[in-house]
Amino acid sequence: MIFSSKLIEDAVKEFSKLPGIGKKTALRMVLHLLKSETTEVEAFADAMTQMKHRVKLCKYCHNVSDGDVCTICINPGRNRAQVCVVESIRDVIAIESTRQYNGLYHLLGGVLSPLDGVGPDKLNISTLHNRVRDNGVEELIMALSPTIEGDTTVYYIARQVKDLPVRITSIARGIAFGGELEYADEMTLARSIAKRLPIENYVSIKSAE
Amino acid sequence: MIFSSKLIEDAVKEFSKLPGIGKKTALRMVLHLLKSETTEVEAFADAMTQMKHRVKLCKYCHNVSDGDVCTICINPGRNRAQVCVVESIRDVIAIESTRQYNGLYHLLGGVLSPLDGVGPDKLNISTLHNRVRDNGVEELIMALSPTIEGDTTVYYIARQVKDLPVRITSIARGIAFGGELEYADEMTLARSIAKRLPIENYVSIKSAE
Repeated sequence: MIFSSKLIEDAVKEFSKLPGIGKKTALRMVLHLLKSETTEVEAFADAMTQMKHRVKLCKYCHNVSDGDVCTICINPGRNRAQVCVVESIRDVIAIESTRQYNGLYHLLGGVLSPLDGVGPDKLNISTLHNRVRDNGVEELIMALSPTIEGDTTVYYIARQVKDLPVRITSIARGIAFGGELEYADEMTLARSIAKRLPIENYVSIKSAE
Repeated sequence: MIFSSKLIEDAVKEFSKLPGIGKKTALRMVLHLLKSETTEVEAFADAMTQMKHRVKLCKYCHNVSDGDVCTICINPGRNRAQVCVVESIRDVIAIESTRQYNGLYHLLGGVLSPLDGVGPDKLNISTLHNRVRDNGVEELIMALSPTIEGDTTVYYIARQVKDLPVRITSIARGIAFGGELEYADEMTLARSIAKRLPIENYVSIKSAE
């Protein structure tokens, strides 16, 4: 692309550094901002820098937070005996958006992956151990990626807390409700047959929907 | 989506105001910025506000420009006798990126559309007339949308400059090079048959590629 304005060119270049944004999309965004009110562009730019400067990580669960403790950990209405172990912020947002879970979270910051140099010290595992030991956690709900790395992480954490009185569960995996068998991947379909449930459980899941 | 941080929520809200950006994409962008270096986020925000505050419109062709006159109009190597009439900045970037055109441009800012309240006074048409009259323009190359509004605009401009010694041409339309007939829309195919060229023209176009 050839530009007649360095300012536009720079803005397009910055935008196309974002994931999944090509030059053409970046140009569309920049021309949209160019046509917007100055106050709107300032609000946009300000929201990004404010977010970057002021967002903290919750000292208990490592979730993003505006203060030292996140709104979930500080909420007295949440069940402190349940902690859902996830990889990232995105997982918390996905689970919170279902409005079905009322426990707390623990963000690991990833999963164990020796090939990528991610050992236990790179993840928030020791703080999880301390939370379980000190805060009366009765259940750890594992919601990690269904990959070898995710499974390894589940086993590692289970071994770390094996002397503590905590139950370890995993979110259910299988064919999505409303999903067609023929479009399911082989791994999911194979596992969902192996881990089949008695029909009364199925009915109770259906009626709890 | 439910967020545990107002700062993140605000940033996602601002991002999803951009065209074609949904909540999920906006979140991906914001989390990317959150992980980036502070200096990178500042460079991003700064590029947007600088662009908005400092970009001007060229006083001759109405293209975006860092100064009063754009880099195309100021370039002594460009052919001042040719002016390509386009709707927007995006068209200029597309044509410039071909590196095949060496004339000047004139940005109308849209096309005539009485239903949307866009009359000749809303477009840069009077300045085009003055340019043709005062600056020795020999050819106006119309590169507007192939719609009723675009065609109306071409006829309107042709009438405006009919007393001036200027030739009016239009960019060629037809089946794209490498395009399959079966995927062409009916209008294009019908027009490309009606406006067929003698074979010697076809050969010269092919060899000029």
